[in-house]
Amino acid sequence: MYPVITISREFGSGGHSIGEKVAEKLGIPFYDGEIVNRAAQESGYCKELIEEQGEATSSASKWFDISAASTMYFQSPQDEIFLAQRKVILDAAKKGPCVIVGRCSDYILRKAGVPCLNILIHADMVHRKKRVLERYGDMKEMGVEKRIEKKDKQRRTYYRYYTDQHWGKYENYDLALDSGNLGEDTCVHLICELAEQFPTRK
Amino acid sequence: MYPVITISREFGSGGHSIGEKVAEKLGIPFYDGEIVNRAAQESGYCKELIEEQGEATSSASKWFDISAASTMYFQSPQDEIFLAQRKVILDAAKKGPCVIVGRCSDYILRKAGVPCLNILIHADMVHRKKRVLERYGDMKEMGVEKRIEKKDKQRRTYYRYYTDQHWGKYENYDLALDSGNLGEDTCVHLICELAEQFPTRK
Repeated sequence: MYPVITISREFGSGGHSIGEKVAEKLGIPFYDGEIVNRAAQESGYCKELIEEQGEATSSASKWFDISAASTMYFQSPQDEIFLAQRKVILDAAKKGPCVIVGRCSDYILRKAGVPCLNILIHADMVHRKKRVLERYGDMKEMGVEKRIEKKDKQRRTYYRYYTDQHWGKYENYDLALDSGNLGEDTCVHLICELAEQFPTRK
Repeated sequence: MYPVITISREFGSGGHSIGEKVAEKLGIPFYDGEIVNRAAQESGYCKELIEEQGEATSSASKWFDISAASTMYFQSPQDEIFLAQRKVILDAAKKGPCVIVGRCSDYILRKAGVPCLNILIHADMVHRKKRVLERYGDMKEMGVEKRIEKKDKQRRTYYRYYTDQHWGKYENYDLALDSGNLGEDTCVHLICELAEQFPTRK
């Protein structure tokens, strides 16, 4: 049986696309936008807000304490969205092998004791800019780089806030891949190879 | 044709052994201890000193400037050993595909414009302690952990001193692997798979 696979990614590194192809090749469910849909049902917030705030933080405090969440008097909308997304991630992993992108899924599943393969996808700025331009069209070059930096910062802050850990530490990943240098297909191939070998891992 | 493969590793993560097996499977030369032998011939320093100081630094300054090395009036024995090892690494890579372990080889080859696959091998402390105990015998447990921390610190300082960069940043590696979680054989398999695909990388 394949493992649950989490994918953390820099913006524009192709993590979404790589995760989608891995899920397709292995024939297992893929969760990225789907987390938004389900979290909307869970929380009552509309999809658009969750899309916008789903990897953002309020600035109310330095970090969020999951273990105290149920007893907390005040939760920001971002905290409620985090908790709704967390529930979706835990439910998805409970059902069996799948690929889950972002939203602290590596941390959430590790904390819950769910064995999974944690993957990091990164790439240099040249490759990321090219990819973002191809995907989102005719932004000016300066605009692209700023957008990438802003998105990365938002995701790092989100991770720091909800996990009290720094994003991107190599120790947190079984496998980290440079999709810029290696290309998307090679990344997909290596992750699938690893998933095949998972039951025999030490 | 296979690429030049550099392996950076945490002490006790099995990087040496993984590199050796990769080289054997691909049928290409392996450089680890061999760098010491050749650097001894280059520099005139004895092997034992190079083994001891080959990934250590003098504390004379904050970092070393390769580009100014030929014009520097004073070079410490460590600097001379670094330059001798650097020459061995560049000569080895010039000859063709090979596996090179440690000694800032990723940085040295990148600076020289040699295309290579840069790999990072890491593992959690539990796996590393077990491995070091198996390899070096009956040290007491406390002794092992201290030895691992000291070796890691030495290598990180060496890397910082000679490259002016922090060791272990994921951006510097095409592939980073957790040998503790994945096991040595899986790491060997993935690196060989990647080496096979290298000519087609984007």
